[in-house]
Amino acid sequence: MQRYFISAPYQSGEIRLAGEAFHHMIRVMRMKPAEEVYLVYEDQIAIIAQITAVEENTVVLREVAKEMQNKELPLLVTIASGYPKGDKLEWIVQKGTELGAYEFIGFPAQSSVVKWDEKKLAKKKQRLTKIAQEAAEQSQRQLTPNVELLANEGQLWDRLAEYDGIVVAYEESAKEGEKAQLVQILQELPAGSRLLAIFGPEGGITPSEIEKMRAAGGKLCGLGPRILRTETAPLYLLSAISYQWELL
Amino acid sequence: MQRYFISAPYQSGEIRLAGEAFHHMIRVMRMKPAEEVYLVYEDQIAIIAQITAVEENTVVLREVAKEMQNKELPLLVTIASGYPKGDKLEWIVQKGTELGAYEFIGFPAQSSVVKWDEKKLAKKKQRLTKIAQEAAEQSQRQLTPNVELLANEGQLWDRLAEYDGIVVAYEESAKEGEKAQLVQILQELPAGSRLLAIFGPEGGITPSEIEKMRAAGGKLCGLGPRILRTETAPLYLLSAISYQWELL
Repeated sequence: MQRYFISAPYQSGEIRLAGEAFHHMIRVMRMKPAEEVYLVYEDQIAIIAQITAVEENTVVLREVAKEMQNKELPLLVTIASGYPKGDKLEWIVQKGTELGAYEFIGFPAQSSVVKWDEKKLAKKKQRLTKIAQEAAEQSQRQLTPNVELLANEGQLWDRLAEYDGIVVAYEESAKEGEKAQLVQILQELPAGSRLLAIFGPEGGITPSEIEKMRAAGGKLCGLGPRILRTETAPLYLLSAISYQWELL
Repeated sequence: MQRYFISAPYQSGEIRLAGEAFHHMIRVMRMKPAEEVYLVYEDQIAIIAQITAVEENTVVLREVAKEMQNKELPLLVTIASGYPKGDKLEWIVQKGTELGAYEFIGFPAQSSVVKWDEKKLAKKKQRLTKIAQEAAEQSQRQLTPNVELLANEGQLWDRLAEYDGIVVAYEESAKEGEKAQLVQILQELPAGSRLLAIFGPEGGITPSEIEKMRAAGGKLCGLGPRILRTETAPLYLLSAISYQWELL
């Protein structure tokens, strides 16, 4: 069943949709009265709605039922990636959205090769936001992750205090066989906590960056004994969080 | 440090390498005596070796130390994917190798759209094997996963009895909120067991396929409440297995 994100809070009563949702339902999908869709509101309430009438620029629906199953990770996980090469950020956002990330932050790490100016960053953000939206619909999320692309690394340091926990995926920790940190954090943080997970670009995280992260309470984690690429490590983390919180 | 897979069992004593390993070490990397590399043998023994001499077509090395840390998942996980569209299989193999898969099997599922003939399958297998090899080196594995591409689905059914456990990633199970199966299997299987994990193509797994898998003892698993794409689900599974076995 088709899924639409509505940029408004949930309200009971008759539902009237124009604009993009109308266009996609009626013009693209050619839906008719009696057909049903998911509507997901910005306050994360999701309902099943049935089309009752189609007007010139508006589709009218009625609520049939609430979507009961919670689709969101109990931890609000922000994936912070040092700008990687090529289109890796695109698929960190696509796959990370499927796997339940709450937010994505890109930042120019000291070893990031790519240099993106304001104009490039604005275009990139637009593209990544669209990818997140499509992945959220496809994976039946109840929210679309927010995407932020920072122009300088200082903007990342300024935010570190906002989070309840910070994990840093550190290759050296993996090589040393570090195992305990991630499990400890995932088992200690209460539901609803905000977790920041920081991943370096291909060149890794520099000692001075590590120092800033540690000073802010960041824990250096190994993600198993194998060396994961910069675009693979966030998917491991999100999968492990889902396994710990949603299956175990 | 560079990592080379040697298609021979480990032997103590002087090491003499010709062919590809020689070419890459000496011609491509321009290594000199005293430099060190990892050598990984087909019996999964990995050593650190130091170059002692360079001859015309042979590089001579001596063993410095064994690689002590085990890099392989305690479960031998075979990822069986119904042939997906485009190059998704390429990156299931690349990412799945980083995440510790033991083997990959591709098969023509009933809802697979792509139809690959023997010639295409042979080319594809060659390409995927190379991708697995490169990902195994990069992620510092102690073995390179084997890749098999089946010409018909019956060849998959014939193998089901070879495994100690079979899990089937089933979208309907995810929608029903199924949580217990995967955890139960991962906690019950002893180390060294062979686990087959079956994933459908974009179109999913058909009821008649599900019946064959169940008849062979396959357990239908949900992988969390979000709907994962065919190329994302195997990465979730491998990450969860690593978290359960290598971190918890």
